[in-house]
Amino acid sequence: MTEPRYDVIAIGNAIVDIIASCDDETIEELELNRGGMTLVDAPGADRLYEAMGPATEKSGGSAANTLAGLSQLGTQCAFIGQVADDQFGKVFAHDIRAAGIDFDTPMRAGDPPTGRCLIFVTPDGERTMNTFLGAGQYLPATALDESLIASGAILYLEGYLWDPEEPRKAMRRAIEVARSAGRKVAFTASESFVIERHGDDFRDLIDNGMIDILFVNESELATLTGEPDFEKGFDMVAPKVPCLVATRSAKGAVADAGGVRASVAAEPVAKVIDTTGAGDQFAAGFLSGFAKDEPLEKCLRRGAIAAAEVISHYGPRPEADLQALIAQKL
Amino acid sequence: MTEPRYDVIAIGNAIVDIIASCDDETIEELELNRGGMTLVDAPGADRLYEAMGPATEKSGGSAANTLAGLSQLGTQCAFIGQVADDQFGKVFAHDIRAAGIDFDTPMRAGDPPTGRCLIFVTPDGERTMNTFLGAGQYLPATALDESLIASGAILYLEGYLWDPEEPRKAMRRAIEVARSAGRKVAFTASESFVIERHGDDFRDLIDNGMIDILFVNESELATLTGEPDFEKGFDMVAPKVPCLVATRSAKGAVADAGGVRASVAAEPVAKVIDTTGAGDQFAAGFLSGFAKDEPLEKCLRRGAIAAAEVISHYGPRPEADLQALIAQKL
Repeated sequence: MTEPRYDVIAIGNAIVDIIASCDDETIEELELNRGGMTLVDAPGADRLYEAMGPATEKSGGSAANTLAGLSQLGTQCAFIGQVADDQFGKVFAHDIRAAGIDFDTPMRAGDPPTGRCLIFVTPDGERTMNTFLGAGQYLPATALDESLIASGAILYLEGYLWDPEEPRKAMRRAIEVARSAGRKVAFTASESFVIERHGDDFRDLIDNGMIDILFVNESELATLTGEPDFEKGFDMVAPKVPCLVATRSAKGAVADAGGVRASVAAEPVAKVIDTTGAGDQFAAGFLSGFAKDEPLEKCLRRGAIAAAEVISHYGPRPEADLQALIAQKL
Repeated sequence: MTEPRYDVIAIGNAIVDIIASCDDETIEELELNRGGMTLVDAPGADRLYEAMGPATEKSGGSAANTLAGLSQLGTQCAFIGQVADDQFGKVFAHDIRAAGIDFDTPMRAGDPPTGRCLIFVTPDGERTMNTFLGAGQYLPATALDESLIASGAILYLEGYLWDPEEPRKAMRRAIEVARSAGRKVAFTASESFVIERHGDDFRDLIDNGMIDILFVNESELATLTGEPDFEKGFDMVAPKVPCLVATRSAKGAVADAGGVRASVAAEPVAKVIDTTGAGDQFAAGFLSGFAKDEPLEKCLRRGAIAAAEVISHYGPRPEADLQALIAQKL
C-alpha cells in the first residue's frame, strides 16, 4: 500500500446555491418542504426562482462544502463531480480550486446546465433547499480517475448522489477502487429521502463492512434503522461501522469508534442566520481531526466549532478563518 | 404633459458582481487600480478570476443598484440595460425584477456573455473593481423603448455607459426623448476615467442645460472642472445644473439646488465591510427624497443612511430594510 497523496477525496454534487431570505408565508404558499432538500426538475426550478426574492449565488454541493472546510483546516483534498460547460460550471470550478482543492473532472458539454439549489432561508435561519441536479446526475463511472481515488487516505461519498443512476454506479466503482487500495470509505447519508429510496443499498454496504465512517443525523438514523429512539438506533448501527458519527442539531453530536464513545454539545451561536452547510461543516471539522488521528472527542469538538461558524452567516462554506477559530476554541 | 407612470427610469450596465475578499498584497501583485474601476477584456477578466479567492456572485451595475435601493424606498422604477442570454443574464434579470423593478430589454443572443465585475475587497473595506462589460457595451439605441422613457419623471443615466459607443448613442437619444416629454434628466459621473475620456461631452451637456440632477464625487468633480479645490469646483458647476450633488466619502456630501445649499455628515458605520455600491445607494436615498419633493437636507440624509447600510455588508444593494432604517434615523 503506497503512501496516500491526498487526505480526503470526495465524490459529490457540483452545485451552485442560489440563496434568498424569505418569510414563513412564502414557504407555505410555495408548498415547500420546510427544512428539507427536495429534488426539482428544470421547470420546477424556474417556477421557484421566479417566486424567489433577490438572491446571492455561492458554490455549494454537500461534499464539496465539506472539502472547502477541510482544505481550510490544512487537509489535502481532491473533488470529483460533474458540472456543465457554462457560467455556473465555471463558478463552481473556480471556487473549489480557489479553496485549494484539486478538481479535474471534465466539464460536460450541452444540456442540462450545471446543477443549482434554490435555498429559501426563513427568519429562524432554517434553510429549505430545492435542487435541480442538472449535469450532476450524469457523472459517469468512466469519469472517475481510479488512480486518483486510490491515492486518497479517505474516500468521502455524498448520499445525495446515490439517487441518480449514473453517479450511483460511479460511486459503487469508487468504493471498490478505494477498498482494494486499502483506503477508508466515509459516507454521509445526506437526507432521509435518499435512505427511504435506497435504504437496502446502504444497509448492504454497512453490513458488508464497506463503510468505515458513517455520518447521519437523527432522522436519517431513524430511517436507516426503522428505530425512532435515537439511543437504540445508534446502538444498532455502531457495532457495524468502525466509526459512526450522529449529529443532533442543537442537541450536539455523538460518535462511536470501536466501542469508544464520545459526545459533544452544540457550539453556542449568537444568532443562527442560515443553517445551510451545518452538517457539511460538521463533517469537515470531524474529518480534519480524524485524518490526524485525534481523539474522538476532539474530532467532535472540531465539527461543532466548524458547524457553528457556517450557520452564523449566509452560505454553505466557511467565511471566518476556521483554523484560527478551532485553535482558539478547542 | 401626461402624468408619469414611473418615478425613475434608469439606463445602465447590466452586470453580475463577483466578490471576494483579499489581502493588500494581492492588489499589489495583480497591479490593480486600488479603489477604482478598471475596464478589462475577456482574457483579462479570466486572468484576474483565476487569481481570485472563493467568491460570491451578486447582481450589480451602478444604476441598477441605485434602482434596487429606490424600489425598496417605495419608488416606481424601470431599468434598461443589456444582458446576454446566459446564466448570469438570467441572474441579473431575476434579481432586478425580484426587487420590484420593471425590466424588459430583450436578452442579446450569442457572444459576448453578460458583463461581470471582479471585485476585490481589502481588509479596510475598500473595493477594487475590474469590469468586463460583455453584452452591456452593445445596448443599441433601437433597444430603447421611447414611450417607456417618456413615461418616467426622472431619467437616470450612468456615466460608465457613456464609454462604449452604442450605449452612448442610445443615451443621447434617451436624453432627447426624456426632455421633449418634459422629464428631468439625472446623471451620475460614475468614475473619473469616464470624464477624462468624455469630459467635453459632459461639459457640453451641462452647459446646454441637458442635465437636471448631477451626481459627482470629489475626484470626478475635480476632473470635470480641472479645479483641484473642492469648494471652488463645486461653485463652478452648481449654477449650471438645477441640482448638483457631490459625495465626499467619509466627509459627507453637499448639494445645491437653485442656490439653496445643504450638506450632511457621513452616517457612522460600526465597521466598513465593503464600500461597493456606496455612491449608488447614496444616489438612491437622495433621489427617493427628491422624487417626493423633500427638502434638500433630508434628501442628503436619506442618501447618507442608505450609503451607510450598503457599506456595512458585502454586495452593492441594500440588505437591511432601508425604508425602516430611514424612518428610524431621519
